[in-house]
Amino acid sequence: MKRNLGAKDLMFPAPVLIVASYNEDGSANAMNVAWGGICSSNPPAAAISIRGQRKTLANINKRQAFTINIANEELMAEADYFGIVSGNNVADKVKSAGLTAVKAEHVDAPYIEEFPVALECRVLSITDIGEHKHIVGEIVNVVADEKVLDAGGKIDTALLKAIGFDPAGGNYIAASEIVGKAFSIGAVLVKK
Amino acid sequence: MKRNLGAKDLMFPAPVLIVASYNEDGSANAMNVAWGGICSSNPPAAAISIRGQRKTLANINKRQAFTINIANEELMAEADYFGIVSGNNVADKVKSAGLTAVKAEHVDAPYIEEFPVALECRVLSITDIGEHKHIVGEIVNVVADEKVLDAGGKIDTALLKAIGFDPAGGNYIAASEIVGKAFSIGAVLVKK
Repeated sequence: MKRNLGAKDLMFPAPVLIVASYNEDGSANAMNVAWGGICSSNPPAAAISIRGQRKTLANINKRQAFTINIANEELMAEADYFGIVSGNNVADKVKSAGLTAVKAEHVDAPYIEEFPVALECRVLSITDIGEHKHIVGEIVNVVADEKVLDAGGKIDTALLKAIGFDPAGGNYIAASEIVGKAFSIGAVLVKK
Repeated sequence: MKRNLGAKDLMFPAPVLIVASYNEDGSANAMNVAWGGICSSNPPAAAISIRGQRKTLANINKRQAFTINIANEELMAEADYFGIVSGNNVADKVKSAGLTAVKAEHVDAPYIEEFPVALECRVLSITDIGEHKHIVGEIVNVVADEKVLDAGGKIDTALLKAIGFDPAGGNYIAASEIVGKAFSIGAVLVKK
């Protein structure tokens, strides 16, 4: 039996993206963004949506760059802290979380050393969608910690232990247990 | 120790979105989209990115509507089938997967009865990002099966058992185990 829930911003899973940028004074800001995802493969690009009053938006407008740090189980409290505290109230938010900002090699933004994977993004466009600014960034490099790479040098999802966001319940969820092989398990349904 | 992986379309987790639309003859098409997410809260809107030669794109252009059906563990093979087979080659793809297309109440697109949650979307914009078309759809209604709702009528992530996509390894991952409370577990780091 189906039920209509109305017009709602629901997605399962949403990611937990720690978006890092430089403040005017060169300190590092970071915020927790669930509204985002990949939006292009060639060139690789990611889209994030954030509200207009965010410190991050002013920072990104100025430097035209940001990084997306993938939240994981180990740093779940720190990731959540970035969602609770505003960069408009806390100077040097990354430091105040006990974490380390490192200048990204390819863009004018910091990544957070302790998070195992970061996407270095250069702004392609910023548009309005409702009350949100929709920021598309070209991913010019992915920086990853060796401890989450497999023998072939690829990110191993079981080692990364990324978390996702459940917007219906306001929960973080585990997003690392492999349950099937893509472009493979559906082959049984293909009619010969 | 960090390593540069280069410019890559990586996201952890990406969602597994079954995008359904009507073909010209009124049969239902469906494809498997990992590049997408929520892009606005007010109005609620979702963005998906698909390649230009897709049957789905022609359908969406014509009817200005689509649904996003959330893939779950139970229907993982069917979800994968939608990623393997092209609507340009198989007529009535939803039926050929053994599933049931139902006309959505609020938009000119079908949802798939067997998937527990569907977002009914009306096109707001279609833009080019690299080789992809970036489609923003206003979510005018969410339709959910009662069996995935909690006592308060909200979607229960543990009942939904959504899956995500791991683009590094090409795997489906479980995305339903709650590991923390958002806007809560980070409070311990807030300086008094």
